[in-house]
Amino acid sequence: MRALLSVMNVLGYLLMVSSLTYLLPIICALIYQDGTLFTFVISLIACLAVGSAITLATHKYRTELKARDGFILVTLSWVLISAIATVPLMLHSHMSFTDAFFEMMSGLTTTGATVMVGLDTLAPSINLWRHAISWLGGMGIIVLAVAILPMLGVGGMQLFRAEVPGPIKDAKLTARIADTAAVLWVIYLVLTLACIIGLWLAGMSWFDAICHAFVALSLSGFSTRDASVGAFDSPIIEAVLIFFMVLAALNFATHFTVWRDRSLKAYWRDTEARGVFAVLFFSCIGCAAYLWFNDVYASFWTALRFVSFNLVSIATDCGFVNTDYALWPTFVPFWMLFLSSITASSGSTGGGIKMIRTLILVRQSGRELTRLLHPAMAAPVTVGGMIIPNSVVVAILGFIFLYFMSIVAMTFLLIFGGLDFISALTAVIACINNAGPGLGVVGPATNYGSLTDFETWVLSFTMLLGRLEVFSLLILFTPMFWRK
Amino acid sequence: MRALLSVMNVLGYLLMVSSLTYLLPIICALIYQDGTLFTFVISLIACLAVGSAITLATHKYRTELKARDGFILVTLSWVLISAIATVPLMLHSHMSFTDAFFEMMSGLTTTGATVMVGLDTLAPSINLWRHAISWLGGMGIIVLAVAILPMLGVGGMQLFRAEVPGPIKDAKLTARIADTAAVLWVIYLVLTLACIIGLWLAGMSWFDAICHAFVALSLSGFSTRDASVGAFDSPIIEAVLIFFMVLAALNFATHFTVWRDRSLKAYWRDTEARGVFAVLFFSCIGCAAYLWFNDVYASFWTALRFVSFNLVSIATDCGFVNTDYALWPTFVPFWMLFLSSITASSGSTGGGIKMIRTLILVRQSGRELTRLLHPAMAAPVTVGGMIIPNSVVVAILGFIFLYFMSIVAMTFLLIFGGLDFISALTAVIACINNAGPGLGVVGPATNYGSLTDFETWVLSFTMLLGRLEVFSLLILFTPMFWRK
Ligand SMILES: [K+]
Ligand SMILES: [K+]
Repeated sequence: MRALLSVMNVLGYLLMVSSLTYLLPIICALIYQDGTLFTFVISLIACLAVGSAITLATHKYRTELKARDGFILVTLSWVLISAIATVPLMLHSHMSFTDAFFEMMSGLTTTGATVMVGLDTLAPSINLWRHAISWLGGMGIIVLAVAILPMLGVGGMQLFRAEVPGPIKDAKLTARIADTAAVLWVIYLVLTLACIIGLWLAGMSWFDAICHAFVALSLSGFSTRDASVGAFDSPIIEAVLIFFMVLAALNFATHFTVWRDRSLKAYWRDTEARGVFAVLFFSCIGCAAYLWFNDVYASFWTALRFVSFNLVSIATDCGFVNTDYALWPTFVPFWMLFLSSITASSGSTGGGIKMIRTLILVRQSGRELTRLLHPAMAAPVTVGGMIIPNSVVVAILGFIFLYFMSIVAMTFLLIFGGLDFISALTAVIACINNAGPGLGVVGPATNYGSLTDFETWVLSFTMLLGRLEVFSLLILFTPMFWRK
Repeated sequence: MRALLSVMNVLGYLLMVSSLTYLLPIICALIYQDGTLFTFVISLIACLAVGSAITLATHKYRTELKARDGFILVTLSWVLISAIATVPLMLHSHMSFTDAFFEMMSGLTTTGATVMVGLDTLAPSINLWRHAISWLGGMGIIVLAVAILPMLGVGGMQLFRAEVPGPIKDAKLTARIADTAAVLWVIYLVLTLACIIGLWLAGMSWFDAICHAFVALSLSGFSTRDASVGAFDSPIIEAVLIFFMVLAALNFATHFTVWRDRSLKAYWRDTEARGVFAVLFFSCIGCAAYLWFNDVYASFWTALRFVSFNLVSIATDCGFVNTDYALWPTFVPFWMLFLSSITASSGSTGGGIKMIRTLILVRQSGRELTRLLHPAMAAPVTVGGMIIPNSVVVAILGFIFLYFMSIVAMTFLLIFGGLDFISALTAVIACINNAGPGLGVVGPATNYGSLTDFETWVLSFTMLLGRLEVFSLLILFTPMFWRK
């Protein structure tokens, strides 16, 4: 109980800091005069008030957090910030709390699945709000993935603690996280600015450029248009977005190294980055050829344009679309969803099991085969020249198992409620990977608006499950966690 | 090369021994005068001739086999016996080699997926042949699962070597396998005879009783009727079959202990058996209630009758059906397919990842959660009071990963070829688990006859992959295996 109060204290601060995000739609409302000013001012005040109230009420419990408290903190952060962020949607757009919470959780987990239609005619400030919450979620996940989860030892990532930039040794938990965060957020901000300028040069309005840059770098994939990026029908805009989506799917610690060394070599030395490039390159070529052979597109190059954009977008867990790829032969959309599970790097804003775990699993499978033939041969798993201890391999295999079982369990929950199998399975995969669009009734040409309240809540939970790497959320449901 | 020739020598003997199976349809042809006598005599001679030729040609390479040779032996046994068993189907029923090979591989791997229609009017000897090959496959898998795979250390089963009945210490490889086999086959034979009598008492003809007992104990699930067990429409027959399907899904080493101790306590002491009972019991009650609430059946008891038979049949990987359960709400058929992956015991004739691995995985997931909270706490995984070494946990997790990836890869291969997703996924799951019917175009009311040759070969491979526990087959495709 005492620990919970200490966590609430930090959470109150986080709410107060996150209330800065409300300034963006407020500025937007002043410029566009879209009638949302009052809504966002009220919302800002509400957020600040809740934050300060919590902080003040728990002031005397302020203390250094233990690693264990981190699990409560991350879960409550995502839940509370999403819950409070629903206020503008409920006030202005009259959405139900269920839908508004899904939309905000989708933004904050950078899933980018939407239940809203008529985006093209929505008040600009409300659109910006969805994108700003995504951008905030991207900031959160970078720190979570690079600093917090490795420290908590979630899913075998403890190995990669040492790669975190900034002073680590002997620093206190919160100070350590703050230092790391500051460095990575500067990189995130600079890349976002570069993307805004790139999109504007490619022909977007400043408003669209800002919104789409926010969700390209956070790999959220919301859009200001119902037709997503397809509404712009511009290969140049697509190229700019592909470039920044791939950057966002790499480890931000690697971007830091590139910036520190003033050399691109770090990308090549990063085993994960090589994996991401290889998977995306060969998948794009292969799938484009497949569509061309199947006469979906008359020319290979047209096929390559559409495959590159949609495949990179889904594989990196961004979720922009520029055509209804659900109409393509089944193989390609399912391959894209499969890639959404394995492609993004650790320490990126993407989701899924992450490239590093994929690589370790492939090596581990090879080792199991070797062990069958040469039981005595001690062959440790190595990735990028680094020996992976057995305990980490076990943790990673355990993570994958829980990840797979979560997909199975959530899919069963949805079909238990009556949803058809393909919609259920693909919605769960798209949500747990924080990718966005699925297939069936939640396909690229539609959205999550047709789902029942039950289905909406299940998927809100699934998005959070994926974002917090399964373990961090599930552990709160064990009796063990709350004992003593 | 020398090793391969030694393996061929054993294989020749196996072919000669397996040619005894041809005596069953020959006797049947004499009784029923169904015009297949000549076909089966020719086939018997062919099988004997190939077997003796191989044995004689490799006579001077006869030697004790090494563990490594076991992988070639098991794969070649299943492939060659299936290939030669196609002769009667091609001669009498004029089936293509692709279809006949699928049918025989389906029998020998005890998958029970069929490409044949008009079973009700088929020559009795041909029907008996399909069932006899399944029964032979059941004999093969018991020895494979109880004696050979644990010895080869496949998928973490090395731990359970010690449970094998019969003299183990200091015995040579082949002698050890032969001793174990003899004991287990007597149990298999006795249970089959009991099942034949049970089915006859329940009202089947002797012919149908023999055929269905063969495939109940081997959990193959072929039938002499297109409508499978639904053609008999008898709750008593269904009850008898449920009883023997559950027995066949338990470890035959446990049956041995029960017989030796003259006490049923061994079933209760067997952690896996308890798991099987629990999973089947609660799933039947739950799914029957679900169908009743969804108004699929007017009474709970009717729902329970149909759920019990079809669910137990699919979960144990037998594959009998008595109604078109594909018409039920999606949740139930998919739950049945999910159970087909996890329910059957090790050392049974069922397939999938096996109950013991399921249990170890559940414990291991719990341990990972504990480890996050108490990193220093050394909590080994235990199942049934036995401590599972970490190396075994890693091997089991590795097995599950390869098993899942095989499902993913084979599903992609099928949808790459143009099959719809649900048919592809469920066909692969049903085949890799050696369960039988899937959904979609391979559902319980149809069969695998509509598939293209490409799809048929992919699924023949998938059945073998599942039967040989993935590793034993995949290892043959590594360059490492063939080096030196
Ligand atoms: K996304
Ligand atoms: K079967």
